[in-house]
Amino acid sequence: MRSTVMYGAGDVRVENLPDPKLEQPTDALVRVVRACVCGSDLHPYHSMPAAEQGTQMGHEFIGVVEEVGSEVSLISRGDFVIAPFAYFDNTCEFCREGLTTSCEHGGFFSTAQSEAVRVPLADGTLVKAPVGDDSALLPSLLTLSDVLITGHHAAVMGQVGPGTSVTVIGDGAVGLLAVLAAKRLGAEQIVLMGRHQARTNLGREFGATDVVAERGEEGIAKVLELTGGKGTRAVLECVGYMNAYEMAIGTVRSGGIISRVGVPQYEEAPIGMGSLFGRNVRLAGGPGAQRSYIEELLPDVLEGRIEPGKVFDRTVALDATPEGYTAMDERTALKVLVRP
Amino acid sequence: MRSTVMYGAGDVRVENLPDPKLEQPTDALVRVVRACVCGSDLHPYHSMPAAEQGTQMGHEFIGVVEEVGSEVSLISRGDFVIAPFAYFDNTCEFCREGLTTSCEHGGFFSTAQSEAVRVPLADGTLVKAPVGDDSALLPSLLTLSDVLITGHHAAVMGQVGPGTSVTVIGDGAVGLLAVLAAKRLGAEQIVLMGRHQARTNLGREFGATDVVAERGEEGIAKVLELTGGKGTRAVLECVGYMNAYEMAIGTVRSGGIISRVGVPQYEEAPIGMGSLFGRNVRLAGGPGAQRSYIEELLPDVLEGRIEPGKVFDRTVALDATPEGYTAMDERTALKVLVRP
Repeated sequence: MRSTVMYGAGDVRVENLPDPKLEQPTDALVRVVRACVCGSDLHPYHSMPAAEQGTQMGHEFIGVVEEVGSEVSLISRGDFVIAPFAYFDNTCEFCREGLTTSCEHGGFFSTAQSEAVRVPLADGTLVKAPVGDDSALLPSLLTLSDVLITGHHAAVMGQVGPGTSVTVIGDGAVGLLAVLAAKRLGAEQIVLMGRHQARTNLGREFGATDVVAERGEEGIAKVLELTGGKGTRAVLECVGYMNAYEMAIGTVRSGGIISRVGVPQYEEAPIGMGSLFGRNVRLAGGPGAQRSYIEELLPDVLEGRIEPGKVFDRTVALDATPEGYTAMDERTALKVLVRP
Repeated sequence: MRSTVMYGAGDVRVENLPDPKLEQPTDALVRVVRACVCGSDLHPYHSMPAAEQGTQMGHEFIGVVEEVGSEVSLISRGDFVIAPFAYFDNTCEFCREGLTTSCEHGGFFSTAQSEAVRVPLADGTLVKAPVGDDSALLPSLLTLSDVLITGHHAAVMGQVGPGTSVTVIGDGAVGLLAVLAAKRLGAEQIVLMGRHQARTNLGREFGATDVVAERGEEGIAKVLELTGGKGTRAVLECVGYMNAYEMAIGTVRSGGIISRVGVPQYEEAPIGMGSLFGRNVRLAGGPGAQRSYIEELLPDVLEGRIEPGKVFDRTVALDATPEGYTAMDERTALKVLVRP
């Protein structure tokens, strides 16, 4: 099959690799109908050391089941399925609590920019959707694989509910869908911090009430101005860089929550008296591939109440995936959909 | 009046200072019946630069109202009152939410190891208690000024409830009362990390189900052994040093909460993929002088259902307060009560 392989920073190729096969009786094989390039794929695209042995890429996909192992009972050949970016058994102690990214037998997908993917723990992982592989809803369904559930996780961990004031930091796909998720959960004021107008316009369409294009201290001052000098109860940090975290500290209300879903590109950061502790600011977030999120959001997608697929502004064939990386890196595309 | 003044590390004196007077119509003057020395007073006791101008000390006291300003209506001369370690109006936006330490007009007491204290915003701050100034309950009532409400804040911010598994880091007065608070809120397993046996014995009396005397990696390993390898849902960090925070990261369950009430003696600390983010661990806590906590806990103290005053293992006269600092610093006393 054709599959996307990275050999180092800036070096993405599409190659012929052996077809995946069932390895465990709990596996399924899924033909990929749509995949995409993630903002987090850009981190290795910037920093991966060059290597002779390449690394397969991609963790977001929807597709059709081609084959299932002998112990798979909930999923059958021909089913259209959504795969979250992690796989999990959905039966262990952590999964039962909904924290599927901490599944005791789970892991993360890493070969999704391909024609086919082997899915471990298929019964736990895959969520069926009643659509055909030519559905107009494919882009929106694909966001349930990562960017929408991640934005939703940010809002849930930020305890966003009716009337909450929210700042969303970042106008990438996750930030924009965090806006949509916050709006869907009833947030009243949603301040989107981002400076790419086409993106922030989509953010307004998704529910942002205010847009702040400034960054750093200037951006913080603008948010405080919009919130009576107090900041917002929830700050959804959808970037992962230290300057975004610093803006989160500056814009969060005393007693509020900074909810992070951008993969942190730092390990240490301020959390002491002058940043979090003195004002009882809480910190939450992490990878959010909860199966329950897909189950909760899927009806809204199927019935057209939300259109998260609008974040895709370019589509490439699988063989052109490297161009997708370039476009996202150069910010000429917000989010690139890949069609095998 | 006699008052405790610190002139630098290790240099605590008791001196004659002018009596406090009403300054605002919302003030009250309180004659101090009992005060005490706080673990957090030991930080300046270790590090304050020597100065010619001393600094008055103390933020925990109970007493009898001697005089009130013209705008004070809820508190009268002769009332026995508990003062939390912060003062607040109890009417601003933050106070109405219960976050009295972020009161828009508030501040923190800093002259309580004295014969009398001026209390700003007396109606908001002071909580009356129906006892005389010779009550046997004075030590327990005094813990409502700081150490009990701080331990309770740790438990509340850690979302401790029926059945929760909890690790408490630190066997100081706050740690022991965090054990009591966690037990009171229904925690099932309470692992106390501390190595002073007299203190951990009191911790067992307050509700600890397990005691771990080891520290660092060895202590973490013991807690994991006691919790099926997973750690506890809540970790109440009642120390404030970096090694305590590191133990919190090691003992918290995936998806759990580290709740800090020990004043952090660091500003930066690990919060990235390898510490909090990857496992969706949350961070909470801060100063917890909520008036609502006193109101909630006071009946349990008055009716003898809890005896938090057991943390006091030495009493000194006001003029001997410096000996109290020495005893706590040398760990020959757990918590020193000061009797003016």
